[in-house]
Formats: sequence, structure tokens, C-alpha cells
Amino acid sequence: MASLEKAIHGIGPLNEKAMRAARERQDSLTKPRGSLGRLEELSIRVAGIRGEIVPRLHHKAIVVMAADHGVVAEGVSLYPQEVTAQMVQNFLCGAAGINVLARQVGARVVVVDMGIAGELEPHSNLVSKKVALGTRNMMRGSAMSREEAINAIEAGLEIVAREFEKGLDIIGTGDMGIGNTTPSSAITAAITGEPVAGVTGRGTGIGDKQLTRKVKVIEEALKVNQLDTRDGLDVLAKVGGFEIGGLVGVMIGAAAHRIPIVIDGFISGAAALIATKMAPNLGDFLIAAHVSAERGHRVALKHLGLKPLLDLRMRLGEGTGAALAIFIIEAAVKTLAEMATFAEAGVSEAEKRAI
Amino acid sequence: MASLEKAIHGIGPLNEKAMRAARERQDSLTKPRGSLGRLEELSIRVAGIRGEIVPRLHHKAIVVMAADHGVVAEGVSLYPQEVTAQMVQNFLCGAAGINVLARQVGARVVVVDMGIAGELEPHSNLVSKKVALGTRNMMRGSAMSREEAINAIEAGLEIVAREFEKGLDIIGTGDMGIGNTTPSSAITAAITGEPVAGVTGRGTGIGDKQLTRKVKVIEEALKVNQLDTRDGLDVLAKVGGFEIGGLVGVMIGAAAHRIPIVIDGFISGAAALIATKMAPNLGDFLIAAHVSAERGHRVALKHLGLKPLLDLRMRLGEGTGAALAIFIIEAAVKTLAEMATFAEAGVSEAEKRAI
Repeated sequence: MASLEKAIHGIGPLNEKAMRAARERQDSLTKPRGSLGRLEELSIRVAGIRGEIVPRLHHKAIVVMAADHGVVAEGVSLYPQEVTAQMVQNFLCGAAGINVLARQVGARVVVVDMGIAGELEPHSNLVSKKVALGTRNMMRGSAMSREEAINAIEAGLEIVAREFEKGLDIIGTGDMGIGNTTPSSAITAAITGEPVAGVTGRGTGIGDKQLTRKVKVIEEALKVNQLDTRDGLDVLAKVGGFEIGGLVGVMIGAAAHRIPIVIDGFISGAAALIATKMAPNLGDFLIAAHVSAERGHRVALKHLGLKPLLDLRMRLGEGTGAALAIFIIEAAVKTLAEMATFAEAGVSEAEKRAI
Repeated sequence: MASLEKAIHGIGPLNEKAMRAARERQDSLTKPRGSLGRLEELSIRVAGIRGEIVPRLHHKAIVVMAADHGVVAEGVSLYPQEVTAQMVQNFLCGAAGINVLARQVGARVVVVDMGIAGELEPHSNLVSKKVALGTRNMMRGSAMSREEAINAIEAGLEIVAREFEKGLDIIGTGDMGIGNTTPSSAITAAITGEPVAGVTGRGTGIGDKQLTRKVKVIEEALKVNQLDTRDGLDVLAKVGGFEIGGLVGVMIGAAAHRIPIVIDGFISGAAALIATKMAPNLGDFLIAAHVSAERGHRVALKHLGLKPLLDLRMRLGEGTGAALAIFIIEAAVKTLAEMATFAEAGVSEAEKRAI
């Protein structure tokens, strides 16, 4: 708990001086002012996070946290639980969606077992931070103990510390866990105050009947567990998941290290709702990669005050949206670093009369 | 004219067989069906264009066509006309926005002088296809002759043929030309039938008074020139520009070579309105990179039936939006090529009961 509190207190404000200087530089580059739109804003935000006028993003990592969920016993998912472990093997073989997109953007993929229901064979690229063999069924009581929730978050802090040692300039969040849209909807409903039906979607593609069941399961879980929604840790413990807790830790740890955090889809959004509850300064360090086709995500982003960079109707998770967004963010900082100024290029500026 | 007609007739339909096979492959990959959203659709579209089930995009080019516009005499732009030539020098030095973003996505930049008002020093990376020293002032009559319009389009065909020889799997369109939102608004109003005020924006950033003047200039140009809006060539000649004509040729030539065409912002959109008028089969080969902050672009895309991939409030032109979109399209085809199938990865498929 000490390391978690230390990390939360270590999250400072954005560096306003670096942001002002980055804005000035953007305005001096060979283009009409503001004509790179959100790329300009992104470059300035990254300058403020890193505390550098011209930040560079050489070292990129996408952390994919995997875990299982007791609530799958209620029939909320289309896929059997063993798919979590099978997909982790797929990540380790480099053949899943996130591997393809992370390769393209030059990011390393960090695969973490946060609590898969079963033992995986050791693999040089698999980090084991297993809190337990999956959560308990949240419809029958708390998904995990408060101590397990803290363990999950602290595992996320440790992952960031380890990656930071290797060199880290930007981090993306990803997830894998059959059934994990169910806890994510529960968290989103609890923290935003929206009705469960308004934040619960089809996940991997369930039909109408199963969706109705999923909404009921979540409503029951929220009733049974009597959450204290002012307390992020309480929400995480009662209706969360180990991978969600791990992502909360990744976000808090990355912000404490002044690393821009690219949050992926709905599961990352739920983690961000908890993380910002626990660490109110964290929001400035978050960049929303995309808006997922999963309906609750839009609600979560609105509550977080984040505008997604992409809207491509993706809903795969794994960090796939984050990988694409990292390219856009890198494009933004590259314009700041590599474009010539009007003076350098000998290009005439806008005519005064017309401004 | 013979080569133009030949190219138009050479534009075939999408390869339905390749598209069906690509769809089947997408559905067999280790992810819930449809969960990569527009990436899946893009990969299938590219398969249909290329006539390959698993297309690859090794060779990428962004063609930046530059020209000047007689209508700048009417005070429609914020920047002096010499900026067109100065920015072309900046492109050749590799220090403009498009150079930075094209480098990031691994695309070569092809800079073409289609009709800059002045002679540029020769440069190994500058292709000269100069039709004239800028167009005439469209408010006083036709911007160019019909012959000049054909010359501009045929120059675009030649550029594509040249790039195709070097190896070309995808092409992006870009533009540079002080004042060129003015002809683009004129073309958009003429072809979509929208009022001029609804498709005319601030370009590089003009104020209210100058915007009112710009609308009046365009209205006058449309009145003076008496366009035959069924005839794309007539619209191009009377209220277009040489870089716009060049881009029309790039689009027609690329479609004839079955190369996916990533259209950038408002100027490329105006060129696409003319190109699809001349070659109705062309539309299937176009991918809209982004929606520009320039207001007429949304109208043009709607008329073209294209949904942009990105909305980042960019309005720089040069092909900068196309560069970012090429990354997304490459991501799409890479998922198709590099992800494992359920069978290959030994991952369980969705449970039958639940479908």
C-alpha cells in the first residue's frame, strides 16, 4: 500500500512552461496556425507530460493484462473461459491482433498474467503477477478482497517500474479476459451513475437474450455488493477484475513517471474511471485512443472528459486501439520536432492586413 | 486525350472473388467476428481493388501537386502567392509537414510543379509538369482552356505511370497552392449543388470580412463562367486549378492500375468530385483519409458517399491526412496477412449455443 500511496502522491501537474514553449514552436512552423488540429494539441500535451519542449517517443510499450472472471459462470460471454489462456499463448507467439499492430508502430508488447484461471507454462515473454486463479463470481459477493485489489494495482506499478528501467516514453494499455466487459460495465455504471442497461453491450457478440441476462447479472452484482462509489478501491474489489486492477496500477505508475498513457477501449476506460477516482491528478496524463463499439465506452470517456482520437468501430481490446493511436501521437510530436520554422525555410508568413 | 479515355475505360470493377475470400479469412482470425470494425472493411476493400486475397502495401507514394491561381488577385488568401514556390522548396528539403508524416509511414513524396507562377530551380526530386504560370482569374473568365485542363489530367496519368514503374501498392493525394480552397469551393458548389456559402471556409485562416469577399468572388466566377456541371472537364477548366487537374489524373490513372487511392482533404475532395464525374467506376477505388476542418469537405465527402477514417480537425493539405490514413490502411491489411486463424493458434471458437 505504501508504494501505491507514494505513486499517487508522485503525480505532479503538467509542465506549463514546456507547454507554452511547445505552443510557440508549433505556431512558428511552416503551416497556417492551428492547421494540424489535434496533432498540435497532442504534441503540446505530451510536452507538458514529459516536461520537454520537443519530446520524442523512442521507447513504446503496450501492456496487455490478462485475467479470468468468476462471473462467466452466469453465461455472460460467447466464448469459453479457456480462451483467455489460449489467447495469451497467441500473444506470446506474436500472432494476435495486438502483436501485428504493435509491430507496425514499433511498440513492445508486455504480456502479464494477472489472474488467469489455470497455470500457464513459463515463457520468457510472459510476466506472472497472478493474484489468484480468476476472480470470484461478483453476483454472489465481492469479486476479490480489498487486499487482492491492492495487490493487483501494485503489480501494475511494478510492471511500469520494470518497463521504465528499459526505457519508456509512452505506454498503451490493453486487456484480455473472457467476460471482462461485464465487470467493466458494472464499474462504469457504479462510477458514472448511468443505468446498467445504458453501459452494457454485446462484448464479443452476444445475442439479445444473453444481453438481457448480462444486464440482470450486473444489476444483481451491484445490489449484492453495496459499493462505496467514492472509493475506487472498493469498486474495484467488489465488481472489478485483476487485469482491470493491474491497468489501474499501470496508469498510476506511468503518470508518476510522467509517461503519456494511451488508454485503449472499454476495459481500459473502466480502469481509468477507478484510477482517476484514486488519483485525481491522473486525468491530464491520459489520452483516449479510440471510442469502442462497446456502448459503455462512450459514457466512460465522457465522464473522464476525454475525446477519443479514433472512431473505427473496433471492439477487440488487447490494446489494438492504443497501438493505432500511438502512431497518431508520434506523428504529432514528430511534426513539432522535425518541421522547419518559417524563418528556417525562408517562407513568407501570413500577410498582416488580413489577420 | 486518347490516353485519358483509355485510362477511364481501363477502370474495372472491384474483384468480388478476392473480397469474398478476404472476408472469409477475416472471419477465421483470432478475434470476435467484426471486432476490428473498419479495419476489416478496409482490408477487404483493398483486396477487391488489388485483386488479391491478402494484399500487401510495400510501396507507398504521396503525390503533392502544386500550382498557383489567378484568383488570388481578388484577395481570397491570407498568404502571398510566392508561398506556393517557397513551400515547394520546403518539400524538397524534407522539412514540411508532409515530409515528416510521409517518412513516418514509409511513403515517398512525389513533388510536382503543375503550374507554379514562376520558374523553380531544377531539383532531382521535383517533377515539372507545368501547364502554365498559374491559372487565369476565374472571376474574369475561364481559369484555363479545355486543352490545358486535359494537359493537367494527362500529367497526372503520367505521374502514376512513372510511379507504378517504380513499384506502387497505394497512393495518397496531396496539394499545395495558395488560394486553392477558392477553386475547390467553386467546384464543390457546382457539382454538389450546395450554395457557395455552405461550402466555403477560411482556408489558411481568413477573417469574416475576407470570407464574405471569398464567397462573392466564387459566386461571381460561377455566374461568369456558365458551367456545364454534367461535364467534369468543363468544371475543371472554368473554375479549377492545375494541381486539381493533376490530382484528377492521378486518381483516374491509379484506379486504372488498380491502386487504392487515399484522398486527403478539401482540394483532393474537389478533384475526386471531378474525377468521379468523368469516370463513374472510380468511386470504389477511393478511400477518404480524413474530414478536413474546411467546411466544404464534409459536403464533398457526403456527395462522394465516402466516410472519412480520421477526424482530427486538420486543414493543412499537402497530403498530411493521407499519410496518417495510409498507416491505418496498412494496419488493416497487416491484420489480414499476419494474424493467426483460430485453427492455427488452437483457440476455441465462439460457443454455438450462444450465437
